[in-house]
Amino acid sequence: MKTAYKTLQKLLSKQGFGRESHVLIGEMFSAAGNELTKCQRLPLISMVEGKSYFSFESPSGLRSRPVNIELFEPKPEISFRVFQDILEGNRHQWKAADITKSLYSVALTCCAAIDVLSASDRKTQGTIFEWLCAAVMQATLKVVPARSLVVLNLDLKGNLPTDFVFDLGSEKPKFHLPVKTSTRERIIQVWAHQRVLDGVYGVGRFLAMPMILTETKLDTKKLEVTEICLPWQWRLYQMHIANLWNVCYLDAPEAYLKLDSVFPRVGVVTIGEMLASGGRLDELLRAHGLSD
Amino acid sequence: MKTAYKTLQKLLSKQGFGRESHVLIGEMFSAAGNELTKCQRLPLISMVEGKSYFSFESPSGLRSRPVNIELFEPKPEISFRVFQDILEGNRHQWKAADITKSLYSVALTCCAAIDVLSASDRKTQGTIFEWLCAAVMQATLKVVPARSLVVLNLDLKGNLPTDFVFDLGSEKPKFHLPVKTSTRERIIQVWAHQRVLDGVYGVGRFLAMPMILTETKLDTKKLEVTEICLPWQWRLYQMHIANLWNVCYLDAPEAYLKLDSVFPRVGVVTIGEMLASGGRLDELLRAHGLSD
Repeated sequence: MKTAYKTLQKLLSKQGFGRESHVLIGEMFSAAGNELTKCQRLPLISMVEGKSYFSFESPSGLRSRPVNIELFEPKPEISFRVFQDILEGNRHQWKAADITKSLYSVALTCCAAIDVLSASDRKTQGTIFEWLCAAVMQATLKVVPARSLVVLNLDLKGNLPTDFVFDLGSEKPKFHLPVKTSTRERIIQVWAHQRVLDGVYGVGRFLAMPMILTETKLDTKKLEVTEICLPWQWRLYQMHIANLWNVCYLDAPEAYLKLDSVFPRVGVVTIGEMLASGGRLDELLRAHGLSD
Repeated sequence: MKTAYKTLQKLLSKQGFGRESHVLIGEMFSAAGNELTKCQRLPLISMVEGKSYFSFESPSGLRSRPVNIELFEPKPEISFRVFQDILEGNRHQWKAADITKSLYSVALTCCAAIDVLSASDRKTQGTIFEWLCAAVMQATLKVVPARSLVVLNLDLKGNLPTDFVFDLGSEKPKFHLPVKTSTRERIIQVWAHQRVLDGVYGVGRFLAMPMILTETKLDTKKLEVTEICLPWQWRLYQMHIANLWNVCYLDAPEAYLKLDSVFPRVGVVTIGEMLASGGRLDELLRAHGLSD
């Protein structure tokens, strides 16, 4: 797993998230799956209504983050087939639920493998999740993401570091994609960054589309899984800081999905509902004459 | 040290930061000082111009965060005497430099003692620093801080969690005090929270006054101390997210102090320059007929 990670890291630093990276992403996923076959499945007590979770437990007793049973495809070849189609630009062949399940399974497999390999590592998982999301969005939007933007504003000149930015060109949408394995109260940063983009480049110039894995939290003593959600704060942020276009989840909390259909609204969808045929991304691209 | 911490914690949860807490804060400081007498001073390589640092190293090899030699008063009775005067509301007896040195020494002693007692603890230090700042500001402003605000806004009702809020009364300044041992890129949260307060209650209703210990970072292998500063981002945040009243530092980075005197300006001062006689706080209080 760690060898596959490092090989991929080296390639990405040189060549980015293009086709060459897809093979190595596949190899990393396969290595991660191998790690997990050595693990047992430890049932967890779910405090989240309608969802069940387990943890992978390694022979040495290290446990993974919670895995959503309904979203986790037990056969890696199935989830990887959907994933590969998405990477080849063929996301429209699959239904929203299949896309969500595939991306959740690939991401969770890679993150859980790192969890059970190293108790102290909390960074690698976030990096891998960023890579997966960047690869998916580059394949989908067919542009290479940037990680910073130039600011030229009277006597102020400089580089503004950003999350992934996918720029579809002049007078076309520009997407700002913060990628997080979970957010809790740190989510306010996403609204704040959007506010800076609105201020520097103009409101509506960048569409914020955070991609978030899950909001689960595991109490390691009680083996209880909860979801940490702050829907009330989200609405205040959406009203008073900036407007996020749509927040995408792989394991979407019900408390946030509800915000999608109330006023004042925060758009929240599963990644499948974002990417599937006729989904939220297609709607936007069509409105700009960019549908494929 | 841990006993003193827990005794203080229990009292604070019942009675807050009033006079009763001052004795226990003194006992915690004294216990922390005792822990540090068991430690050696390990010289560090300072990459910060004009500042020198060392670490306390416990007999078992645990090392503290960097300590600024010029700001750290070697005699605890001296720094505590100034600190006690401040807690008794007599801050005007001391010069800015004495106040900064005293508060830095008290805070650093307590945080460093936890550092050398427990390698994994990263939360207690932040909690202690919050307590010290809250006690100082309650003694200075003579009001009890709140930790949340009520939002009543058409059909939206709820409680907004905040950092410490000191409300001097109707038509008087209300201070919002985020307290952090260091900030790095997380500082954007402070601007974002200010933006929410501006939006919900009106611009200028709350004055943001973050209190920050230091921005040092220790490379534990090379034993090098650096300061992580993002002055360019601070200016963008100040222009595009919200306006912070004044940022207070105990160990102030030069890169941020410079922002105090350029346009667009971010007010940055040492805690001594904030609290000393005729300092920035006095200026504001006098303008509102609140000077003592």
